Amino acid sequence: MASTGADKIGEDAQAKPESITKNELPDRSDVPDEAGANGELSKNAAKKAAKRDKQAADKASKSKDKPIGTAEAKLPTSKAAKKKTEDTPLIGIDVAKEEDFSGWYQQVLTKGDMLDYYDVSGCYILKPASYFIWEQVQEWFNIKIKKMGVKNCAFPLFVSEDVLNREKAHIEGFAAEVAWVTHAGKTKLDKKIAIRPTSETVMYPYYAKWIRSHRDLPLKLNQWNSVVRWEFKNPQPFLRTREFLWQEGHTAHLTETEADKEVLEILEHYAGVYEQLLAVPVIRGRKTEKEKFAGGLYTTTVEGYIPSTGRGIQGGTSHCLGQNFSKMFGITVEDPSAQPGEKKEPLFVWQNSWGLSTRVIGVMVMIHGDNRGLVLPPRVAELQTIIVPVGITKSTTSDERNGLYKEIEGLVEILRAAGIRAEADFRDKPPGWKFNDWEQRGVPLRLEFGTKESRGHFVTASRRDIVGKDGKGKSEMPITELKTAVPALLETMQKDLYDRADEKFKSHVKKITSWNDFVPALNDKNVCLIAHCLTEQCEDEIKDMSARTAEEQSGEAQDAKAPSMGAKSLCIPFDQPDGVEKGVTSCTNPNCMNKAEQWCLFGRSY
Amino acid sequence: MASTGADKIGEDAQAKPESITKNELPDRSDVPDEAGANGELSKNAAKKAAKRDKQAADKASKSKDKPIGTAEAKLPTSKAAKKKTEDTPLIGIDVAKEEDFSGWYQQVLTKGDMLDYYDVSGCYILKPASYFIWEQVQEWFNIKIKKMGVKNCAFPLFVSEDVLNREKAHIEGFAAEVAWVTHAGKTKLDKKIAIRPTSETVMYPYYAKWIRSHRDLPLKLNQWNSVVRWEFKNPQPFLRTREFLWQEGHTAHLTETEADKEVLEILEHYAGVYEQLLAVPVIRGRKTEKEKFAGGLYTTTVEGYIPSTGRGIQGGTSHCLGQNFSKMFGITVEDPSAQPGEKKEPLFVWQNSWGLSTRVIGVMVMIHGDNRGLVLPPRVAELQTIIVPVGITKSTTSDERNGLYKEIEGLVEILRAAGIRAEADFRDKPPGWKFNDWEQRGVPLRLEFGTKESRGHFVTASRRDIVGKDGKGKSEMPITELKTAVPALLETMQKDLYDRADEKFKSHVKKITSWNDFVPALNDKNVCLIAHCLTEQCEDEIKDMSARTAEEQSGEAQDAKAPSMGAKSLCIPFDQPDGVEKGVTSCTNPNCMNKAEQWCLFGRSY
Repeated sequence: MASTGADKIGEDAQAKPESITKNELPDRSDVPDEAGANGELSKNAAKKAAKRDKQAADKASKSKDKPIGTAEAKLPTSKAAKKKTEDTPLIGIDVAKEEDFSGWYQQVLTKGDMLDYYDVSGCYILKPASYFIWEQVQEWFNIKIKKMGVKNCAFPLFVSEDVLNREKAHIEGFAAEVAWVTHAGKTKLDKKIAIRPTSETVMYPYYAKWIRSHRDLPLKLNQWNSVVRWEFKNPQPFLRTREFLWQEGHTAHLTETEADKEVLEILEHYAGVYEQLLAVPVIRGRKTEKEKFAGGLYTTTVEGYIPSTGRGIQGGTSHCLGQNFSKMFGITVEDPSAQPGEKKEPLFVWQNSWGLSTRVIGVMVMIHGDNRGLVLPPRVAELQTIIVPVGITKSTTSDERNGLYKEIEGLVEILRAAGIRAEADFRDKPPGWKFNDWEQRGVPLRLEFGTKESRGHFVTASRRDIVGKDGKGKSEMPITELKTAVPALLETMQKDLYDRADEKFKSHVKKITSWNDFVPALNDKNVCLIAHCLTEQCEDEIKDMSARTAEEQSGEAQDAKAPSMGAKSLCIPFDQPDGVEKGVTSCTNPNCMNKAEQWCLFGRSY
Repeated sequence: MASTGADKIGEDAQAKPESITKNELPDRSDVPDEAGANGELSKNAAKKAAKRDKQAADKASKSKDKPIGTAEAKLPTSKAAKKKTEDTPLIGIDVAKEEDFSGWYQQVLTKGDMLDYYDVSGCYILKPASYFIWEQVQEWFNIKIKKMGVKNCAFPLFVSEDVLNREKAHIEGFAAEVAWVTHAGKTKLDKKIAIRPTSETVMYPYYAKWIRSHRDLPLKLNQWNSVVRWEFKNPQPFLRTREFLWQEGHTAHLTETEADKEVLEILEHYAGVYEQLLAVPVIRGRKTEKEKFAGGLYTTTVEGYIPSTGRGIQGGTSHCLGQNFSKMFGITVEDPSAQPGEKKEPLFVWQNSWGLSTRVIGVMVMIHGDNRGLVLPPRVAELQTIIVPVGITKSTTSDERNGLYKEIEGLVEILRAAGIRAEADFRDKPPGWKFNDWEQRGVPLRLEFGTKESRGHFVTASRRDIVGKDGKGKSEMPITELKTAVPALLETMQKDLYDRADEKFKSHVKKITSWNDFVPALNDKNVCLIAHCLTEQCEDEIKDMSARTAEEQSGEAQDAKAPSMGAKSLCIPFDQPDGVEKGVTSCTNPNCMNKAEQWCLFGRSY
């Protein structure tokens, strides 16, 4: 993982306002969770849970409307139940990541307080814990693009039908998903108006107006906004939603070379968001013709990998649009190479567009989370370190307890001064309950502090990212070293999270040279590098064949969430292994008569 | 003007990336402006300009669609024309602020590169120059609210009809303006879905779900988003737009006292945005029952004043919603005062909501701008200081010129190191053209540097905010003092801008005790403090009477943009003058039989 100084933990955090104060620590002791809060979930229990949900929602809404927040929430199906603690039950994740990944994902998000379901299908509420992560991404990415001369701006949400339809190949890619506004109040609009699915056609008529001279180039604008794509496929929080937050950059250049250069710079920043902030490894590459952006010239991408399902996931795309849009919208400049008096044809500008969405959060959760809940990389965690008082018993005097609390407040101050986002948990709950609560929320580091620690002038540190009861993730830290040891440990955790995910990804990228090995490799949760001809027809065939073969081999769908899913191309990695000899090596698809062009990464995907 | 350390110029700018580099300085030498670019604007010229606009737009759009960017742009009507410079014409503002305020406002925004018109009526493009200001507001306000424990989040853009309609008084205030989505692609939706006009009803069903115990309180969430209100009144950039960017805070509290306290804290931050960032004075007060937020308990407001029209303008509102919404949405907690075993009625929470929009930018432009263009307060200006080389003639050798440029680059470095957002303008244009260009864009400080300055080790500084050819705004600054003198001068300008606007506002708030003086005072561009009964009926009467009287007195409408506009209540200022004796003083409306309650500020308004 590349590491820049600016990203180190504990360097800039100090300047930021601390948004959590101890009085605001949320207390969810009496919040029964929506989906399957109680232990054993037989069919009966599931029914009961559904009934209880409905009652709760009815209470809340006091109406006969659809219950709020349960629109798409599925009941967990795993039998891995957890016992309630006697005192104050904290309802943990009660499905195993390995057994019911989809149910697990949903619970991790809702119980980790990242997200809630919304009563308009396919839309979700980003709660502060997840929005904070998005703010970190924004801050980081803004610095990178502003250095490149990109400026932020805001174009309208709406686009007229005429303008939307102007670029044919482009709109074909989106037409079925466009949401249309037809009325305002009770008044029918003269012409229906679309909500932007992306802003190429929103912005480019103005690029045509603003760009008159080569001296107006490059024009580099970016927006942080939300777009709407009314997909009818099964929605999934962060990964496939009808409205989503993203940034979309749109730039215009005089030359192809400049455009090409920027495409890769942006892609590298996207990789940086994953690798440096979210501790998620990605593969950089180019999309095939079949998978490129509708209307563009070529698309570059960072591709991630979800080990639990063995599926690839598109992480962010940086497109070179070529001159397609500039020709359609008439974005031209006079040729600067023309001599005085010489008449030359005007030049169509070269354009790029690039986007990264809140999907990054979903990928991060899927990769790092475990059966205790979220695991947040320290650099993006709103709360990086929680200090929990321990060892307070009935025989502890209130003076002793107050003394301990005061010491803990001092520790919080030390950490904050070192630039760490730290809090103390003084709630009236047993330590075990608190441990579980913070683990569920993914807080990277827990420091325990009791009379033993007080006497020995140390804290007991417990890493969230290392699971196990053997104390592997536990260590003792002298208080005198706190201000350097905690930032260092958080950095170590950040690196370890990345390294573990990277090792997993690498071990699941299989170089396949014989078609017979292809589907078995997919079934073993791999993504596959194959020598490929890069034609669309062959890709379609591979998708068909891999879907069918999967069914034949197993007699049933391999992945409950993706029945008989075929493999599609994820990208043509920039980093090409040896072995494809142009004009010699055959395409791996046995029915394909073409020669292979390059190694192409195929996989089941989101 | 209150001033906090954090807001001082030159303190934090250094940490920010510089987004302008000299290669990206836009060159608009050959950009004819859309509306009335050429000099004399007779009716004929206006027609010609319109024709040229259409041709330009057709060229750009290559279609028969509505010309882009001219949807609502009005042609200027003033005769105050400016001569083109011989070399490269820079088309300045060609209507006077005093003569055609509306035309002036439009030109200042478009020629100052703040905004462009969009082909969906009532929607506008916020270009980087204005969006940067919004980013400054966001950054400043985020720090303030995060200190208060408010957290940012994101709720969906959409709201179902059932939920939207749940709070009757509230929805009545918005129903006519709600945009409805009825189709996705070619598919008709089962139920139409609204785009949020504000998020009370979007969020509160979830508050009901999330808040179960008094320990979940206070809940303080904020969103930076856009909302849609499909107004049919004449739209105006920043001031009345169908989609606008804003923040909306929504908080829930256990007690009325806590809610009340927060309402005022937020209002003070709104005042801070105006006073400390935008150098705009505001009056803090409470809205009357007639003007309060639909469905809320009471509304507090900061009210601004536009000297050119003599109209008041609502600047930002902080509402206490009381328990109205919590009763409607069932947001309750158990009474924490209940003894163990005791059964008490659950408590409905107290709620606030508060919003501030990009309207702030429009107010700032209207107040500070002049006939040369924008005047930006230094704290929010993207570019605070521009350095322009001067005194280069045909006899200047290229070595001399390069030496000068190198010195200027050094000056830029000095300023940036001092935290100033500074640039040099090395474009191939005459200095006078550059001066006009940067003045039009409102850059606060221009530094001129030529051989004279080089020899004397100083720069010639020229303030944007002080108009006049007498050199009043000009001074010489030794280079050795640049790094302290420039930040200090910018701070002085910030303060002077505020002070001048404040003086103007104060001199136009008239305390009126006789009804006969009321309308003449309005006609003299004042807002009026009157002793008032605060009843809705009386307010309606005053609006009617002041409109009628205005027409009677003048024989025509006083304000072309607001024919026969009556006065409405702006606020009940917190700062009450003496003179209203409850139960004794009569209401100022001669037809009203009530006694006056308080001094209330009335005015024509936006």
